[in-house]
Amino acid sequence: MSFQLFREIQADLARVEKELSNYMDTDHPTLTAASGHLLYAGGKRLRPAFVLLAGRFHNYSFERLLPLAVTMEMIHMATLVHDDVIDESETRRGTPTVRARWGNRVSMHAGDHLFARSLLLIAEMNNPIIARVLAETSVEMCEGEIQQMATAFDVEQNFRDYLYRIKRKTALLLSASCQLGAVAVDAPPYMIRALKWYGYHLGMAFQVTDDILDLEADEAKLGKPIGSDLRQGIMTLPVLEAIAQVQDPKLKTLLAKQEKSEREVQEAIRIIKQTDAIARSHRVAQLYLAKAKAELSRLPNIPARDSMAMIADFIGRRSY
Amino acid sequence: MSFQLFREIQADLARVEKELSNYMDTDHPTLTAASGHLLYAGGKRLRPAFVLLAGRFHNYSFERLLPLAVTMEMIHMATLVHDDVIDESETRRGTPTVRARWGNRVSMHAGDHLFARSLLLIAEMNNPIIARVLAETSVEMCEGEIQQMATAFDVEQNFRDYLYRIKRKTALLLSASCQLGAVAVDAPPYMIRALKWYGYHLGMAFQVTDDILDLEADEAKLGKPIGSDLRQGIMTLPVLEAIAQVQDPKLKTLLAKQEKSEREVQEAIRIIKQTDAIARSHRVAQLYLAKAKAELSRLPNIPARDSMAMIADFIGRRSY
Repeated sequence: MSFQLFREIQADLARVEKELSNYMDTDHPTLTAASGHLLYAGGKRLRPAFVLLAGRFHNYSFERLLPLAVTMEMIHMATLVHDDVIDESETRRGTPTVRARWGNRVSMHAGDHLFARSLLLIAEMNNPIIARVLAETSVEMCEGEIQQMATAFDVEQNFRDYLYRIKRKTALLLSASCQLGAVAVDAPPYMIRALKWYGYHLGMAFQVTDDILDLEADEAKLGKPIGSDLRQGIMTLPVLEAIAQVQDPKLKTLLAKQEKSEREVQEAIRIIKQTDAIARSHRVAQLYLAKAKAELSRLPNIPARDSMAMIADFIGRRSY
Repeated sequence: MSFQLFREIQADLARVEKELSNYMDTDHPTLTAASGHLLYAGGKRLRPAFVLLAGRFHNYSFERLLPLAVTMEMIHMATLVHDDVIDESETRRGTPTVRARWGNRVSMHAGDHLFARSLLLIAEMNNPIIARVLAETSVEMCEGEIQQMATAFDVEQNFRDYLYRIKRKTALLLSASCQLGAVAVDAPPYMIRALKWYGYHLGMAFQVTDDILDLEADEAKLGKPIGSDLRQGIMTLPVLEAIAQVQDPKLKTLLAKQEKSEREVQEAIRIIKQTDAIARSHRVAQLYLAKAKAELSRLPNIPARDSMAMIADFIGRRSY
């Protein structure tokens, strides 16, 4: 995501980055290395950006927003590093992760530590709404992960199963970032609500787009091999759209297979691409983006609102 | 630990048990099974018991103590299930754990879910002291785990390294259980302080005893093979005492070896038992128990205080 999108909050976002970097510094060299690896591997810092942008709609206070912005990114990082902890059969895939370099134990403890540190920040903020929303979000995010495991390789699941998962995987934390940024600056309820729903719909669109890219992105830009959802048995929207259209049982057989050869993965992608599954998925993403922008129209016309609209447009066009 | 010790709070502890059991019931069958497995595998429920006993010293209110008691046990269970997530090289040891039955991913998500659920309980209690103490405790517990990994197989570490670890592994959560039970019923500061330190010293003694038992318990009673710390390279107090006494470099060589044969483990235990390392470790445990009981003397003479003294005596004598 281009840095330009965040011009509105560029300087403060840099201060968040510095604070995050300080947070990675611990007394434990391995932990510092693992967390640092995770931080410097990049990421769009979309959650901190949303915290700051949401804070613009009322009495902007960087001091009040900073711990929240750091917390949101740390929770996000904790989920990423825990998602790396996978069963032995899957250990040889993908780019070097914390797990690949330091093993499951370090990944798990690094994630636990990030999460525990964010608890400390939450406790220090001493705001019952922030504490409750982040606790609820954490529970739901876990349930999404569990559901993803439970439905892996299940070709009979429906679109609702998919929406249940991506809400928890992506939309809720982005929604909480927007919502709580407004809560932290004591914005009025109507703003909090509009920002919460903007974040939710934007997050749904973001994940749908992510799932499309897993089938058709340029691997070099994406930074990981395409088809990784297929290999893990995660049935994404374009996959479910294709299942609904293709009569030939071969696609289902390929998708349900737990250990696919590289040829089988490519064959499944080829069949999916022969349908209009990807075009349909793009339309779903556009619908969510339209809903996100409709929420923005309820908010005051300030530069932060333009930035949020631009982020929505960017997600509609993103190719990596 | 005999149920008799908790006579004082027996009925309420049974209600905590029921509530814990309700908490294990989720919409996700695998998660419910994994968490239930963990819960019904037993455990002494020492943390909930301490919450309730501590609450006896002031205006006892089961309703205020219940969410805290459940939270403490769930945090404990979360750490247990995460400790099961180990590297591939260690997957074939020990009794059936959640990880052994359902794999690393389920273990990790079950632990995350238990922890997130406990966050929700913490948020609902809406008590900034409870939130802060549990956040700080969680961070320190993670750091203890990380330190345990970092010092594994290191025969040059000192007693302070050991005390650093067991404080975080065991003492802090027991201490927080006692402290926060008193906080939840608005006990006066002197009581909170005495209970906190009782829990801390008792916890240190508990872990020292645990570490002695790993070398000399009856395996059938202990429920796991002895010597498991040695296999994992964890240098416990009796091991460090033996290292300090034995001149023969053979012991260090054995202990530093990452993959020990069963004969090597037994040989190391034999050498350690030839020293007075275990007797010295028992004396350290007794010192901590004396300190724990000294804290009790600051508290009103009520039946809960007798129960806490009996728990200290029991730990001094326990053989499994």
